[in-house]
Amino acid sequence: MVKLPALASDAVLKKSADISNFTKVEGINYADDSAYNMKATDLIAAMKTMGFQASSVATACVIITEMDSWRGKHIDDLPEHERTGMFDETGVQRATVFLGFTSNLISSGLRDTLRYLVQHKKVSAIVATAGGIEEDLIKCLAPTYLGEFTLPGSALRDQGLNRIGNLLVPNENYCKFEEWIVPVLDRVLEEQDRAIAELGPEALHADSPAVWTPSRLVDRLGQEIDDELSVLYWAHRNKIPIFCPALTDGSIGDMLFFHTFKASPRRLHLDIVSDIRRINSMAMDASRAGMIILGGGLVKHHICNACLMRNGADWAVYINTGQEFDGSDAGARPDEAISWGKIKADAKSVKVYADVTTVWPLIVAATFAATRPAAV
Amino acid sequence: MVKLPALASDAVLKKSADISNFTKVEGINYADDSAYNMKATDLIAAMKTMGFQASSVATACVIITEMDSWRGKHIDDLPEHERTGMFDETGVQRATVFLGFTSNLISSGLRDTLRYLVQHKKVSAIVATAGGIEEDLIKCLAPTYLGEFTLPGSALRDQGLNRIGNLLVPNENYCKFEEWIVPVLDRVLEEQDRAIAELGPEALHADSPAVWTPSRLVDRLGQEIDDELSVLYWAHRNKIPIFCPALTDGSIGDMLFFHTFKASPRRLHLDIVSDIRRINSMAMDASRAGMIILGGGLVKHHICNACLMRNGADWAVYINTGQEFDGSDAGARPDEAISWGKIKADAKSVKVYADVTTVWPLIVAATFAATRPAAV
Amino acid sequence: MVKLPALASDAVLKKSADISNFTKVEGINYADDSAYNMKATDLIAAMKTMGFQASSVATACVIITEMDSWRGKHIDDLPEHERTGMFDETGVQRATVFLGFTSNLISSGLRDTLRYLVQHKKVSAIVATAGGIEEDLIKCLAPTYLGEFTLPGSALRDQGLNRIGNLLVPNENYCKFEEWIVPVLDRVLEEQDRAIAELGPEALHADSPAVWTPSRLVDRLGQEIDDELSVLYWAHRNKIPIFCPALTDGSIGDMLFFHTFKASPRRLHLDIVSDIRRINSMAMDASRAGMIILGGGLVKHHICNACLMRNGADWAVYINTGQEFDGSDAGARPDEAISWGKIKADAKSVKVYADVTTVWPLIVAATFAATRPAAV
Amino acid sequence: MVKLPALASDAVLKKSADISNFTKVEGINYADDSAYNMKATDLIAAMKTMGFQASSVATACVIITEMDSWRGKHIDDLPEHERTGMFDETGVQRATVFLGFTSNLISSGLRDTLRYLVQHKKVSAIVATAGGIEEDLIKCLAPTYLGEFTLPGSALRDQGLNRIGNLLVPNENYCKFEEWIVPVLDRVLEEQDRAIAELGPEALHADSPAVWTPSRLVDRLGQEIDDELSVLYWAHRNKIPIFCPALTDGSIGDMLFFHTFKASPRRLHLDIVSDIRRINSMAMDASRAGMIILGGGLVKHHICNACLMRNGADWAVYINTGQEFDGSDAGARPDEAISWGKIKADAKSVKVYADVTTVWPLIVAATFAATRPAAV
Repeated sequence: MVKLPALASDAVLKKSADISNFTKVEGINYADDSAYNMKATDLIAAMKTMGFQASSVATACVIITEMDSWRGKHIDDLPEHERTGMFDETGVQRATVFLGFTSNLISSGLRDTLRYLVQHKKVSAIVATAGGIEEDLIKCLAPTYLGEFTLPGSALRDQGLNRIGNLLVPNENYCKFEEWIVPVLDRVLEEQDRAIAELGPEALHADSPAVWTPSRLVDRLGQEIDDELSVLYWAHRNKIPIFCPALTDGSIGDMLFFHTFKASPRRLHLDIVSDIRRINSMAMDASRAGMIILGGGLVKHHICNACLMRNGADWAVYINTGQEFDGSDAGARPDEAISWGKIKADAKSVKVYADVTTVWPLIVAATFAATRPAAV
Repeated sequence: MVKLPALASDAVLKKSADISNFTKVEGINYADDSAYNMKATDLIAAMKTMGFQASSVATACVIITEMDSWRGKHIDDLPEHERTGMFDETGVQRATVFLGFTSNLISSGLRDTLRYLVQHKKVSAIVATAGGIEEDLIKCLAPTYLGEFTLPGSALRDQGLNRIGNLLVPNENYCKFEEWIVPVLDRVLEEQDRAIAELGPEALHADSPAVWTPSRLVDRLGQEIDDELSVLYWAHRNKIPIFCPALTDGSIGDMLFFHTFKASPRRLHLDIVSDIRRINSMAMDASRAGMIILGGGLVKHHICNACLMRNGADWAVYINTGQEFDGSDAGARPDEAISWGKIKADAKSVKVYADVTTVWPLIVAATFAATRPAAV
Repeated sequence: MVKLPALASDAVLKKSADISNFTKVEGINYADDSAYNMKATDLIAAMKTMGFQASSVATACVIITEMDSWRGKHIDDLPEHERTGMFDETGVQRATVFLGFTSNLISSGLRDTLRYLVQHKKVSAIVATAGGIEEDLIKCLAPTYLGEFTLPGSALRDQGLNRIGNLLVPNENYCKFEEWIVPVLDRVLEEQDRAIAELGPEALHADSPAVWTPSRLVDRLGQEIDDELSVLYWAHRNKIPIFCPALTDGSIGDMLFFHTFKASPRRLHLDIVSDIRRINSMAMDASRAGMIILGGGLVKHHICNACLMRNGADWAVYINTGQEFDGSDAGARPDEAISWGKIKADAKSVKVYADVTTVWPLIVAATFAATRPAAV
Repeated sequence: MVKLPALASDAVLKKSADISNFTKVEGINYADDSAYNMKATDLIAAMKTMGFQASSVATACVIITEMDSWRGKHIDDLPEHERTGMFDETGVQRATVFLGFTSNLISSGLRDTLRYLVQHKKVSAIVATAGGIEEDLIKCLAPTYLGEFTLPGSALRDQGLNRIGNLLVPNENYCKFEEWIVPVLDRVLEEQDRAIAELGPEALHADSPAVWTPSRLVDRLGQEIDDELSVLYWAHRNKIPIFCPALTDGSIGDMLFFHTFKASPRRLHLDIVSDIRRINSMAMDASRAGMIILGGGLVKHHICNACLMRNGADWAVYINTGQEFDGSDAGARPDEAISWGKIKADAKSVKVYADVTTVWPLIVAATFAATRPAAV
């Protein structure tokens, strides 16, 4: 071959359509003073046009700001049957925001950021896994420590140190938790049995005080812990329900299990049907619905499923490390949820592929905590 | 620099310890006739010394074979209080094997392989998520189809086609499911209320027939579906409990939610405390315990947590795509569970980093299905 | 809310389009005798309809079979200028198959499978990284061993044991490699300098024997090693070029570096321009082009880039663990390559998300090694 | 079982060692004013104790600050043979910092941040892939645009739009690149051939001006582009070599390929042996060596391999999304490099598991760009 075939040059030097009206990829302009020790909002503004997940992080901020600031009509201007969902302090409709997080985020230092959101009523309902409940309570009793991913399990077990990624929780913390929770479970069982005795055959009817659910127990735990550092405390105080259908799947489950022996033949029950009624009703009642889902698994599916009841959420932000190729719900993109009617076709949605701890502090600093809220 | 410094040559040509007694990396010997259109056991034997995840897949087979074939004493040789756990058909102790899987695996063609294990009593208990229950039932009513990961959600929603990775489930299937399950829920509610009426204040005591749990409802669904292609059917028939603490988190939850309106003010309840008692008891009763966990999230944690009650499982096989760097339980290696006492320090364990569908058919073919079992 | 709003039931029970002509998800039929200790082709046939990556693995087999078996015209029926590309032993056109693999696969037990492909002329050209060249040679001198991912680096360095994932290579192996390769480099340098002296100012012209390239040096190494267990040996013998533009990036680079001191002021040169001419020409000359790319990074991009010269490959199989979210070429799906003209729009392509070692032995067993080839 | 066996309570309530001297997990204190619209250094300080990858991001900042600020002796206090490596403007030893990045980062908005580092001499040498060279040049000729990961390849090809993740590069940009680079290649070839003619048989000796290498050509391209927005421009101006052993693997390779036809029978050659001599010498000459590696593949291995020549780097920061389970070098943790002698056993090192774009802007803002440097 002595001459370059046209095939090759045509393939390489193919002409292209004009897309000069598209957004140009751009980065930080270091000529600006704001490019040094950057502030969260400036960093996010610059990341918007960087591409890859930097752009996704910035899009997450846009969506969160929109769901946080959306306002509808004043309650007085609504017909009776539409006076549902969330309202701001002036009586104007706002979005119902569902926040989901996996338990490891409560174990991590993100707990303070999650509490901040609950304390300042930035979210309307929470879905968590059991560890996300108990670790919040346990941290009120004793601290969690930094460790390393590579510490050998056998040596740690000998020392009674439980590893969560690069964190360590001394087993002593769970002993303290047991001491704290057993009296609470005793009281709750007492209340259950008293209500059954009083109500008779109607004890298990809808909204019966004899029926304890995960969300009701979690609310009580938040009341009992009475600690301003706790997510559960503020959820109780601000009437933000925390749903945890598999509440038995963790240390709380261990304690409930132990309690079945202590209380036998009496037994506390936790009903999950009443909680599905409750969360689904919140989704249906919402004037607008937003989802912020940190991590995958149950917390992701549960919020999406509730939003199916309203034919889809209006905003969705997913942040996790799951991938779609294995067909897991954890890894599914928002577009899969659209096929199910869990996110509206015209909703704004984004998935950020990241360990939540790397991006959530920045995202909150540039949105919910861009300015200090008025004192609570 | 005109002469090579000793530093560089010393660093590159450093002497090494003798490890000629270690296993050599080797592959397939294509001189053998068995290297063509290989059989599962030959393939696994060759993969053992290939390294990376090929070795992990082969190790998983070794562990599974060991947990499947372990035998202890004859029941007649055991003191009364040790006559717990699983026994083979001749009365000899065998391991209690916990199988966990995420719902997508039932949606996939692995359902048949999972059913095979249940049909032939290869496992003792199952932990699944809600989708893993309902998709098994729904597949008895209508098929799931192959699609693609990239099909756009909005167009699919218009056509009522729900996407699960590269699978499609027509929404019609869920309509059929509703028709099938509502009468079942009616009957179950009837039974619950009758038992309450009969038992009075003791209705919620331990082991009360008035108390329905997820595992009890799933067992009933398996009985009702009465279809030999169903995992639930064989679980019911072989008395293999299926635990699903968050049973409301899926289409079954939608149906239970709808049913709360239909039945109002009566309401079916599903108690998760009695189920944690049940699964934990199985773990404690086991003479040996093995875990096979396909996927992450709740199903993984729930089995591990149960095995903590016995101070650790004796064998563990994890297969999933989760990574440990984000501190998720899904991504945690077996060694993290050892720190918690969920796997024994001297247990054999392995994590295979793979989409389950790529390796599980091969693993089963080389272990549980290496030879055809006697007819059931 | 006492009545279920139509919104919820309409969303959940939405009607769907009929897709009963789509392929149904199905698994293994354990009623068949072939379902036990399954053969590779039976396993792959069953995986085709399982969904997720099982289906992708099966699709990879379909594509590989197609690119392997494609035949065009007899060379005698072609005009002179079209008598390029690959022909089978009867003189009929066949596809030019580019095989790429990362170095770790040669370190693993897959080396034997890769050698099998080269030995039996299943591929037309190879792209590898430096480690993929040297580890093949080193394995002819001393073995690699199985280790573990968690062995601590500091202790290994003290013992002179180099870790590659869960493999160990004693540093002694590299010392043996140095002893073996230095005389070869001496001879090659001698040949280079002799040719320069002979050719004078035209020494660096096209196709000058004075110009050594990575592919030419690798061919010589294959000739020198003279070992039937070697990939390079068979590549040399079967005239299958191995491209490795960054041949200096590994132990061979260390040796070339050392050699610059030994030979000073003379120096061996390796020209990468002549190699890009060579690989691109192969792509342009191909009557059909297939790509099999195991792993990511340079080997993936280099093959795709060559196929751009022909306006796209006709078949493409990627197997790796990379993800697209970070915009890396490693993680890019085949569809990204279509946008560049590196894969034809109507080509058959698939990406399998897997560690190559978990699926490649099975894939080869069901395709290239489904039957034993005639003796070489 | 009517009584809780001691086994379970002992396992759950096991006592633990005291680790109260370990660092406690803590998050952001929202009582502080600095917790709102946080500045980079405050955010990083808070992330340090958050765990998971937040801690890794903060550790990366600690390491980077240390490698950037390390100072040794004044050059006048050093014996002649130790006057190698890098010195600051006052003549005091500083660390040699190797920066590696994959091409997609230059395509993204990170290019400006990478240029900032080069412009202000924060790094001593760069290793990049071919795309990382040409995209920097092409951006001087025409912009790259934001697109989406899901845009279909076939339609894009029709429009001549090349996709890189969620970025789009019009093919027109490559046409402009061809126009720009061909005259440069003409001149370089001219210079090569003139030097050969002048030098005769010694033309290929060490340090011959007749020998062009990838790093030498890249330096020339930086000089020719003469644009302050370019990474290459500043690398040329600040004498920071850019190594790219596989420079032919991209559009530059296409151009060099085309040029072989245009120039035939003359041919420009690019020698990679002289470049391995050059980068390895830099590593050996360094008084201290730091590695900052963004992405995986060749750029990661090449820097690590160079540092083996000095028996290990003193600091190492990896940021990428690769995982170790497949035995890839891309996914290998720093501890694997320690086993090879590429990182010192007592070095400070960290791997951050993240898409570089999500964390690098923040990391730079908290380290290299924590304060504005003096004007250049």
